[in-house]
Amino acid sequence: MIDKCLGAQRSRKIQRALRHCKVTIICLVLTLVVLRGTIGAGKFGTPEQDFIEIRDHFYSRKRAEPHRVLEEVQTTSSNNHAATDTDAGTNNYNEFDINKILVDEESDDSKLDRNRPYSLGPKISDWDKQRSEWLKENPDYPNFIGPNKPRVLLVTGSSPKPCENPVGDHYLLKSIKNKIDYCRLHGIEIFYNMALLDAEMAGFWAKLPLIRKLLLSHPEVEFLWWMDSDAMFTDMAFEVPWERYKDSNLVMHGWNEMVYDQKNWIGLNTGSFLLRNGQWALDILDAWAPMGPKGKIREEAGKVLTRELKDRPVFEADDQSAMVYLLATQREKWGDKVYLESAYYLHGYWGILVDRYEEMIENYHPGLGDHRWPLVTHFVGCKPCGKFGDYPVERCLKQMDRAFNFGDNQILQIYGFTHKSLASRRVKRVRNETGHPLEVKDELGLLHPAFKAAK
Amino acid sequence: MIDKCLGAQRSRKIQRALRHCKVTIICLVLTLVVLRGTIGAGKFGTPEQDFIEIRDHFYSRKRAEPHRVLEEVQTTSSNNHAATDTDAGTNNYNEFDINKILVDEESDDSKLDRNRPYSLGPKISDWDKQRSEWLKENPDYPNFIGPNKPRVLLVTGSSPKPCENPVGDHYLLKSIKNKIDYCRLHGIEIFYNMALLDAEMAGFWAKLPLIRKLLLSHPEVEFLWWMDSDAMFTDMAFEVPWERYKDSNLVMHGWNEMVYDQKNWIGLNTGSFLLRNGQWALDILDAWAPMGPKGKIREEAGKVLTRELKDRPVFEADDQSAMVYLLATQREKWGDKVYLESAYYLHGYWGILVDRYEEMIENYHPGLGDHRWPLVTHFVGCKPCGKFGDYPVERCLKQMDRAFNFGDNQILQIYGFTHKSLASRRVKRVRNETGHPLEVKDELGLLHPAFKAAK
Repeated sequence: MIDKCLGAQRSRKIQRALRHCKVTIICLVLTLVVLRGTIGAGKFGTPEQDFIEIRDHFYSRKRAEPHRVLEEVQTTSSNNHAATDTDAGTNNYNEFDINKILVDEESDDSKLDRNRPYSLGPKISDWDKQRSEWLKENPDYPNFIGPNKPRVLLVTGSSPKPCENPVGDHYLLKSIKNKIDYCRLHGIEIFYNMALLDAEMAGFWAKLPLIRKLLLSHPEVEFLWWMDSDAMFTDMAFEVPWERYKDSNLVMHGWNEMVYDQKNWIGLNTGSFLLRNGQWALDILDAWAPMGPKGKIREEAGKVLTRELKDRPVFEADDQSAMVYLLATQREKWGDKVYLESAYYLHGYWGILVDRYEEMIENYHPGLGDHRWPLVTHFVGCKPCGKFGDYPVERCLKQMDRAFNFGDNQILQIYGFTHKSLASRRVKRVRNETGHPLEVKDELGLLHPAFKAAK
Repeated sequence: MIDKCLGAQRSRKIQRALRHCKVTIICLVLTLVVLRGTIGAGKFGTPEQDFIEIRDHFYSRKRAEPHRVLEEVQTTSSNNHAATDTDAGTNNYNEFDINKILVDEESDDSKLDRNRPYSLGPKISDWDKQRSEWLKENPDYPNFIGPNKPRVLLVTGSSPKPCENPVGDHYLLKSIKNKIDYCRLHGIEIFYNMALLDAEMAGFWAKLPLIRKLLLSHPEVEFLWWMDSDAMFTDMAFEVPWERYKDSNLVMHGWNEMVYDQKNWIGLNTGSFLLRNGQWALDILDAWAPMGPKGKIREEAGKVLTRELKDRPVFEADDQSAMVYLLATQREKWGDKVYLESAYYLHGYWGILVDRYEEMIENYHPGLGDHRWPLVTHFVGCKPCGKFGDYPVERCLKQMDRAFNFGDNQILQIYGFTHKSLASRRVKRVRNETGHPLEVKDELGLLHPAFKAAK
């Protein structure tokens, strides 16, 4: 009797196993077919192959519902500013008025406040003139600190609250040290923000009021370089090719086709970008902001973006998707001054970089800034400060340590040291002390780099 | 029967109370007598009264056994450098040779390695000449960036490990943001160290090899400003009076009498000091270092210091006590180039400052740098990163938040914001946006300060 039962059990087990195998094989075949269909399309050039690699890597690991809502900082009483200047009747919102979009969609939501559209501040229309007069009157604060060397302010920041994940603040600390090192070598000043200037624009949108405030307060700043706290410099020797951007006002890593043709939500990245101080910057900030206000507006705008952009998951409006949408729908207005840079990693998605560091060390050298030695490794989705990232925590933290050490080694070698390994906090000596330290040339020439010397 | 017992009980209670009162009154009287005897001595001037206040406050709260051994970072194989240059037979150790001291004390400890005295690196005797030649050949890297404005490098750092106390890293982060803000306003560069360069000189001694390395690598740096990670800038408007130190090579907060007459271990503070780049700096670093090497040397040196210095508790040798001892015993050698500054708080002991912030705001203004508005508030003994501080954790953290906000308010006011209170992370607007931002003058003149302008 028992034997008979065992036999029946075994038979069921075998059947179950066979079913699982069938399902697995079907999935495998489908994956191959889709992959073949995509890669085999053949119409993408080299830079777009980067994009494909990134996209496929990105989607295979991201959870279906990304938690892109970053820390909601404290709320304060509403700081909404109605446009108070005489130029209030702007055209900026016409093509991209979220309120208008929602009306067109016949939304029944009467709670939307369409009477006071969000504004970053009083409309300014003569900023170029105000700024150039100020620069003339203040020759001690020039906007260029050398030939081809604009004055740059790197802006970053984090929440004023301790991280929910205790180790998160340690990584924020390492991240700012990393930025301090790069900026010291390259003559760039840093502004580290920990204040929420506008409660409506919390989370990833908080950078907009901050950027506007800093541009208007610091006319001597030619370029504002926004950089996320989860982005690190991994090429200490690479100087941004400022000359390349002499006719551009906004530089982001991305690909024209991905943005203008595909409207892909990751066709560009707003985690590390350059914005030239001027009227144009104020205008694009004003055009960018409307999807940001917390609550219903941001929610509804998120739905629009998911619908309008390629591959975008469902979540509230984020600044990056909004920028893609803005550029894709108003190319004639902004496009000529936007440089989508893919020749080097102004932003480098960590997923396709961090496992290759040893290979880079073996085959290349700092100063290249691109896939061979990325300027920036950006840990999108890791969120070490919060509770929920899009990737396994261990993988993120381990790779952030490696990226930090990869960059830090370039600083340490100046002084004759290096990390024992990319995984190790410990350092070892690689160059002996000498009685003639000034005859020592560090290999990378970072001790007294040309791009830092006062001219 | 019961009444009788109750009566006896009451009587005992009353007697006990009376005894307690007597003891209390005796203690009170003794305190007054001692206080009168000290303050009433009349030979101390105003600056020393500061010292008394600090000392009394300090000792009334410190535990008997301070845990001044800071985080012992990782050990690496010994990096002890024997003096290898031809000038090895130096006089630097003669007067302050810890090995000699221990021999004189007839220590039986044969484990002490007296064969290879510790050395920070090969002896260099012509650093002023090497440096001035380099400066001539490198006019792009001048050591003065303006009239009366030396090139200054602020050096600080923390352990490469996450703090044992999870919130500790958050305070390190706020602390470095605070330093970034001050240094940006004052045209000072920052080096944030997270590497242990010499395993023997771990903990508070780690700064010595680091400082030496940075001086020798950066001849363009005129002053190196060491600042502890637990020290914060609380006067953003105060510019160090560089001219005052034109004949000095080492500037520390302290009092001559406390160091040279009393040999008091807190007669000066090495948590924030200025060191001029030059041969003299290398020499004093060499003279300072011998008590530092971890283990037996540091232990035994600690005993010497406790014995020789006034009021010093029992613990291993620390860099501050060693400096007091060095200066007190070799005044003729170093004293003429050491400036013990007490006119402003190059280091300000937090205990006597933090409860007065509101009073300061009420009565004074930034730019004073002294007891009215301290340049630096230094949280000695708090150790938010470790497990054991010398003070209650809550008190420390709360006051560090207040000190941070006190300083941060001076930055925020530039942009028209302030913290809602000294205890609050939240900010509020105090100046409306305007269409003519360049006509706005921030009250403290920190937007484009004179001490920052390029000359």
